[in-house]
Order: sequence, then C-alpha cells, then structure tokens
Amino acid sequence: MLIFVDAPLAERHKSTLAAGAAGDSFIFRDELPGESEQREALLKADILLGNPKPVEWLEKAVNLQWIQLYSTGFEYYRHIKIPAVVTNMQDYYSQPCAETAIAGILSLYRGAGEFAALKNKQQWVGHIIRPALQTLQNKHVIILGAGNIARRIEKILQGFDCTIRLYARRSPNAVIRTTTELEAALPAADIVIACLPGTEETKGLFTREMIAALKHNAIFCNVGRGNLLADEQALTEALMHRRIGGAVLDVTQEEPLPAGHPLWSCPNTVLSQHSGGGSTSEYEGIVACFLENLAAFKNGIPLKNIVRFDKGY
Amino acid sequence: MLIFVDAPLAERHKSTLAAGAAGDSFIFRDELPGESEQREALLKADILLGNPKPVEWLEKAVNLQWIQLYSTGFEYYRHIKIPAVVTNMQDYYSQPCAETAIAGILSLYRGAGEFAALKNKQQWVGHIIRPALQTLQNKHVIILGAGNIARRIEKILQGFDCTIRLYARRSPNAVIRTTTELEAALPAADIVIACLPGTEETKGLFTREMIAALKHNAIFCNVGRGNLLADEQALTEALMHRRIGGAVLDVTQEEPLPAGHPLWSCPNTVLSQHSGGGSTSEYEGIVACFLENLAAFKNGIPLKNIVRFDKGY
Repeated sequence: MLIFVDAPLAERHKSTLAAGAAGDSFIFRDELPGESEQREALLKADILLGNPKPVEWLEKAVNLQWIQLYSTGFEYYRHIKIPAVVTNMQDYYSQPCAETAIAGILSLYRGAGEFAALKNKQQWVGHIIRPALQTLQNKHVIILGAGNIARRIEKILQGFDCTIRLYARRSPNAVIRTTTELEAALPAADIVIACLPGTEETKGLFTREMIAALKHNAIFCNVGRGNLLADEQALTEALMHRRIGGAVLDVTQEEPLPAGHPLWSCPNTVLSQHSGGGSTSEYEGIVACFLENLAAFKNGIPLKNIVRFDKGY
Repeated sequence: MLIFVDAPLAERHKSTLAAGAAGDSFIFRDELPGESEQREALLKADILLGNPKPVEWLEKAVNLQWIQLYSTGFEYYRHIKIPAVVTNMQDYYSQPCAETAIAGILSLYRGAGEFAALKNKQQWVGHIIRPALQTLQNKHVIILGAGNIARRIEKILQGFDCTIRLYARRSPNAVIRTTTELEAALPAADIVIACLPGTEETKGLFTREMIAALKHNAIFCNVGRGNLLADEQALTEALMHRRIGGAVLDVTQEEPLPAGHPLWSCPNTVLSQHSGGGSTSEYEGIVACFLENLAAFKNGIPLKNIVRFDKGY
C-alpha cells in the first residue's frame, strides 16, 4: 500500500510507522519540497494519514480507500466526494480537553494568573488576594454537549460536588433539550462549559442573548468550536466590562488569534490557544491508532472510529 | 461578656457579630490606637475571637474562658498556660486548600502559566506548547496526611482516575505508615501532595533524601506547613536544575517570602502565597462559626472544634 502522511510527526514516530507496516510505502508530505509534488503524491496514495490542507486536494484523490484523520473534528472534510472510508480520533482528545477546561476554571477561581504575575514581581500579597478567591465546590454547571468530553468533564466535576446539567438535543443524559430551555436555565449557572462539535446545528448556537443571560460572576468556557458563538464580540464586551466573571477559551472564531484582537486584552480570561487536546504522548497515540486500523483494513475487519458524516460527530 | 476580636473583619462582619450577640460587648483590636491599649483590652476580656500576636500577650490573659481561633493551625498557641478552652476552624479551609493544590497541579500540567504569559505578549503558539502538556489522569499520587484536606484532595483526584496512597502514622486509611516506607514509595510517585499540620513530628519530616528520591517529572505540592521540609534549599535546587517536574507551594519556610528569595525564580513553580484557605465568604464563615459556638458557650453545651493540643490537630 502507498500511504501518504500529512501530520507533524517526529522522526521517532516515522520509525514506529515504518516498523509497524514493513510491507507498505510511506510518503511524508513534510519531506517533499513543493506543493505540486506533495499534491501529486497524495493523488497516487491508497491510504492517507492526516488532515491535508487545502482540503480541495482530496477532490481528485480517487485512489484513496481510507483516510485516518488525526483530529476528532472533521467538519472540513464533510464535503469530500471521493468514496474513501474516513476515520477520526473520536474520544482520544477528550480527557486532555476536559482537563484544560477544569484547569482554566480553577485558575480563575484560585487566582493562578495573579499569582504567576506576582511571582515575576517577587511580591507576596496572598492575604490581599485570598478574600477574592472562589471554590468550584457546589457550583451549578451547564455543559453544552453530551459526548465524550462532556462525560469526562462531568466525572471530574462530581469530585467537586457540582450540580451538573447537560444540554443536548437528543442525548438521554441531557435535561436541557432546546435552546429555549437553555436560555431559561442560563441565569442560574455559575459556569457554562461548551464542548460541542462543529456542525451546521451548533454554528452560532450560543447567542448574544444567552451571553446577556449569564450571571455577573458566571464563567463561560469553550473547548468545542469557536463558531459556537453567534457573536464573539458580545462575549468580548461582557468580559471587558466585567459583566460576567470570566472566560476560559480554548477555541475562538479566528485561530490563531491575531495580535491586537480584543480577546487578548480581556480581564479574567484564560486563552489556551487550541492546546486542549495536547499531551506529551499525542502523536504516539495517533500512530498507534493508525497502525491498529491499518491491520484491520488489511484483514477486512471493520475499522475503529468511522466518521458518521450524517450525524456530524 | 466582654469579647476581644483580633481578626481582619470588615464593617459588615462586625455588624453581624453585634447583631448576633446583642447582650455582649465587643472590643475590636483594629479600632484601638496603640499596642498597650490593645493588650490591656485583651487582658480584661472573657472571650477572644482571633489569633493575637505576639502570642505572649495570652500568658497573662487569665480572664479568658474561651479562645476561638480563626485558623485551623494552632501550633503558635500550643504553649499557652491559661486555662481557656481553645477552638479552631477544623475542616473549614479544607476544600479551598484542596482546590488550590489541584489548581496548581493542573496549571503545571496544562501550561496555564505559559498561556498567561503568552496572553500578555498576544502571541498564539498553542501548537508548539501542546506536545509538552500532561494530563492528571491515571497519575500516581502520594498524599502526606490523612485529615480533612487529604480527604478532599483524594475525592477530587478520584474524578481523574488517579492512583492514590496516603502517608500517615496512625490513620487506618493510610497504606504508607513510616518514613522508611515513604522513602521507598516516592520513586513511583508522579505527584506528592503534603497537607500535614504543623507539629513536632511533621517538622522536617520531608528530608533532602526524599526530594532526591523523586522522579525527574514529579510534582511536589505543599498546602500544609512550610517547615515540613528539612531542607527547603534542596527543593529549590531540584527545581532550579529541573531535576523534578515542578512544585506547587502554598506554604514556605519563610512567609512572606522575601524579594530575592531563590524560590521566586524557580521554573515550573506555582507560589500561591498561603492563600489556600481563602474564599470570598471566608470571614462570613468565621463569624457564623463563632456565633454558633458563643450560643453553645452561654448555654453550657460543648463547643464545636475544640483543639486537642495533645494530638496536634
């Protein structure tokens, strides 16, 4: 098989791939000099490991039988017309994403940003800061989503005795099922954590009115997709004027966030720069998942993590 | 009753006290001009709410029948000879302390400090940082202590599927019972969290050799007492030379930590400046606890949270 790899792999990951699929040929995009060579190599390949850009290259990659994305999200590949099977990383990033959400929220509640700045200034004023600190215990949390990330977050929050309500249209675990119900529930929430995938239905789901419905000390956290917000500027203004307690944003409308963007200057705001899924073993896991699926593919066994484009997740 | 109050209370807390004990007289130390007036007032009082310094003032305060400390720790009051009953805040600070510990550890694992610094620089480099991030999930944690803070931390860590072992000499929940066993257990720990009270037995308990026994990526966290470390400099050096993964220190040998102290400059180190117990409602809770105990005191009912000087916690 000819396998095209479009992923930022280190040499050790490439060696693992080669050792795990000795009879196959790998072409690594980052080893080819120009875009035209890269595109040509993709068009010849039987299998693709990675998330190529531009996505349009895939339109003519008719030899591809299987595409293993290294992401969980696949919204950019939804309109591919070629008949390849597409698999993704499903639950793989859920735990690090959940931990990034909780880390950000606890940072705000326990003053981590302030203490980091004070450390640089070598200034000990803990007794002044401590009356402003909050605890996560017993907080009322609304989670937008009922998938893998939501479940991980829910489990962690149970350790803090939080009251948790899930918003999802169809999941049996969700108690908030419509946007009308969500709007009604928001004023009681101390924290709203969004971990929805990027679909046509989630785009712009969280409206300006919903931001206005948040409590004065509520935290809005998004580890899903930046386009969940119908009006990101409304969030920026709420933060800037301290009309809400703070935000933890792993994702934003525009990524990377350009210098000068107002979100950089918002107080009580954690920007984790779409690192939510990251971990030291990130690419080891991706390579292991690919090799497992490759063995299944060759043996005619159903692949793991096949993407359901009709469902959107 | 004449009640002397030596605690940093806001006007609203003083009003709550006055309303809750209408027949009693309060003297607030911070309303008296000089040290001699303050000391004299204390010597006349029947009841003390607070943690007066210098502690020696208490030696002659023979009228005192009951002392309500606003701290959980009482090591400074151990040698008081007067026959007053002493109560403390017991479990009151456990949850915020536990959350400060977890917030600090998650900060290190999820890069919160780096992202805070990058926000100031308006620089988006999440893809560079993400391969260095770690997760708390499945980590091996040794907790030094088996009291209230330890229990809260344990509960939170269960939500992250951590493997947890407690060190305590007598608690039935502890599986590590001696310092020899502790030394043997340390090399397997990803995280060590100290939440021991300040007693003669815990002073210097964590030795230079124990610091040397830690893994290269281990995190040492202390939300107990700074004098737990026999040799704080050994920790500083381990951090400075990156021989361990990092530290979360709510307490240090010297507090406040003076400018120029080497701990300020240690990498991968969170200094939360003894704010661990802090929360927005801190003094509301202290006042409420005092008033509850005051009613019990007047009615001859046993007080809550009586300090057992013999046990040291």
